[in-house]
Amino acid sequence: MKFISNLIPLEEALSKINDNIKLMDTETIDLKDSQGRVLAHAVSSYHNSPPFDKSAMDGYAVIAEDTFGASNNVIKELKIIDRIGAGDFSNKSLQNGDAIVIATGAPIPDGANAVLMKEYTYEDGDNLEIHSQVTPGENISPKAEDIAKGDEILGENVLIRPQEMGLIASAGYSEVEVYKRPRVKLLITSNELVDPSPNIDDAKIINSNQYTIAALIRSAGATVDIDHGIDDFDEIRDAIDKASREYDCVITTGGTAISKGDVVIDAVEDLGEVLFHGVAMRPGKPVGAGIVNGTQIFMLSGQPVAAMGQFDIIARHFLFKVQGLDYSHKIVKRTSSTKIHSSLGRTDYIRAVADDETVHHVLNRGSGIIRSMVEANCYIIIDENHEGIEIGDMVDLIFFNDMAWPSL
Amino acid sequence: MKFISNLIPLEEALSKINDNIKLMDTETIDLKDSQGRVLAHAVSSYHNSPPFDKSAMDGYAVIAEDTFGASNNVIKELKIIDRIGAGDFSNKSLQNGDAIVIATGAPIPDGANAVLMKEYTYEDGDNLEIHSQVTPGENISPKAEDIAKGDEILGENVLIRPQEMGLIASAGYSEVEVYKRPRVKLLITSNELVDPSPNIDDAKIINSNQYTIAALIRSAGATVDIDHGIDDFDEIRDAIDKASREYDCVITTGGTAISKGDVVIDAVEDLGEVLFHGVAMRPGKPVGAGIVNGTQIFMLSGQPVAAMGQFDIIARHFLFKVQGLDYSHKIVKRTSSTKIHSSLGRTDYIRAVADDETVHHVLNRGSGIIRSMVEANCYIIIDENHEGIEIGDMVDLIFFNDMAWPSL
Repeated sequence: MKFISNLIPLEEALSKINDNIKLMDTETIDLKDSQGRVLAHAVSSYHNSPPFDKSAMDGYAVIAEDTFGASNNVIKELKIIDRIGAGDFSNKSLQNGDAIVIATGAPIPDGANAVLMKEYTYEDGDNLEIHSQVTPGENISPKAEDIAKGDEILGENVLIRPQEMGLIASAGYSEVEVYKRPRVKLLITSNELVDPSPNIDDAKIINSNQYTIAALIRSAGATVDIDHGIDDFDEIRDAIDKASREYDCVITTGGTAISKGDVVIDAVEDLGEVLFHGVAMRPGKPVGAGIVNGTQIFMLSGQPVAAMGQFDIIARHFLFKVQGLDYSHKIVKRTSSTKIHSSLGRTDYIRAVADDETVHHVLNRGSGIIRSMVEANCYIIIDENHEGIEIGDMVDLIFFNDMAWPSL
Repeated sequence: MKFISNLIPLEEALSKINDNIKLMDTETIDLKDSQGRVLAHAVSSYHNSPPFDKSAMDGYAVIAEDTFGASNNVIKELKIIDRIGAGDFSNKSLQNGDAIVIATGAPIPDGANAVLMKEYTYEDGDNLEIHSQVTPGENISPKAEDIAKGDEILGENVLIRPQEMGLIASAGYSEVEVYKRPRVKLLITSNELVDPSPNIDDAKIINSNQYTIAALIRSAGATVDIDHGIDDFDEIRDAIDKASREYDCVITTGGTAISKGDVVIDAVEDLGEVLFHGVAMRPGKPVGAGIVNGTQIFMLSGQPVAAMGQFDIIARHFLFKVQGLDYSHKIVKRTSSTKIHSSLGRTDYIRAVADDETVHHVLNRGSGIIRSMVEANCYIIIDENHEGIEIGDMVDLIFFNDMAWPSL
């Protein structure tokens, strides 16, 4: 029996793409717009944080020694000489026997060396009963405890979450240098495709990839522009050539199958280099990748589910890595509640539904069946060395949510 | 010993907020812009999908009966009479002994009743050797297999992921009705705060909440506008009154502590109703909530880390639920590699670092320490019935990433 196909293993395909990853250029943006971006350089602080000794509790700034011996049985009394809200200062200085009401975050007044928690006191006018003692320094956040001036607070290639935004602000920066978002051109081949509408000629297929693949590209932290309806070799060749000069990555759908010539593959071959065409994976075998004018090209199937899987497995990590964010699929383990057939020598990504303990595959497995992706929340992965799964087997899976660019 | 504070349990605070949740109004938007939005109505299909019987494989459309008996030892021959790419049709009709090259997704030509996979064949010009048999219907996706015309394909309150976008498109819709994003006004009190800059008076504190809390609000699927520098009772009262009439939710930071009067709480009391002030949780005890002009108000601390925790624990689920998306913290279990002190009667949310198996708390626990949130990737939760954690205990935790509005 002769095999015509010339499939390469998935690991080899991924390795060929990794060989061509170059970091994006950087840009300086307002810190307000930096959520979910990646730092291009380490950041050092202009400031001490906190800039002064401050209270870590709502309570009373006191001289610790005045509280020694106080307890529920031995109540001591202090005199309240001032009140400091958050953001306020006191101009007064504590003498023995004094207390100043202090809010969390407010600066410790002169003379005080501890803060007594509100819970251990009873306030009556300017008179304060205390039921507990504190040690010197207790409940005080010392100046520069969080950040010392000159400290490197964040390294390069760090994802900026809400808390990193706050830390960068506290360090004195209102702008930040990050990697640019990759701009992706999505070229949807075939002029048989039409936009969704209630009335459609039966000979036409609704172009759903303009929605799903574009959304996946955005979920990998990139921006996307779309061109449609490109069909013959010359049109496709010209569109890829132009897009490769104007964008950071080009993704095509359709035109990679075998019957009437692999028109997209041929166009990339003509313009540059085909890195591979055909990967031992299912769904998504006819996926291709290439380089044209130095730009990475991914050639996905026209079939919606195959194209989604190909993007997730072959292309997604590229868009993360060019932005300085390392990416590998987060694999978790669940017990299979169904038997699943697979084949040696091929990596299967099987649409499945997992809860906290078990996973079962979605029954409808055709590569055009978008509904199967809607029912699913993960892929079960069966690597090329395994021939199917029995009920009760522990299996590897990737939750769809875990594949997205982190949003927090 | 007398306690001044009047804290309510966390569960009671959450329940008071849940009592006031009303769904947002809906809006009709372009399907292209619907990623991450929530469907306001069920969607039924205008179309069959696929609209015709189509090939599920790259291979050859055949009459199954012609292949019966073929194997590696018994090779049969067919004649190729046409070739159909994806998106193409054949005008020819198969007779016994004929085969038509067919791409995945292409319509099955007249006369054919099965598709033979390419792998089990050898093609030489118009001559096709076949090494395997197929049964009638094999490798054909029948018309309407994915969706039948009139089927309800998605119910209301479904999150629109890339695959739901594709399914909605396939059903014939280019627009979709979704819940509006809640518009949040963030009011940052205290005029001691300044924007980040390399040179800052030591008496001033950098306003980091304008970044972190705004980013958290966006990570809950809402939009946010910010006002700063509001300080005294009248200013705060007027700002809350105005914002409550113009926005779907108002969030304040600062002005909830105890020393110089709880100015934000007093303003809300004056304008409407305070639902609670003070929750038995740590960090974040002085959090408040209220209703003004029918609008939900959350009153967070000025301290960055306390405010982040308060938002995540008290406010986040509100912003999800008004958009029709149910939300509860996704709790996972890990083994603690550190001993952690806690108190009975209080729910602790402890910044921590977890990997696949273990978790340890971040050492620096002051409520102003943004760096502790940068080091952390999760909260350990110690509920009010537990008094601390020993090394080796299984503990509950919430990964920060799992709290975000789903991005895929």
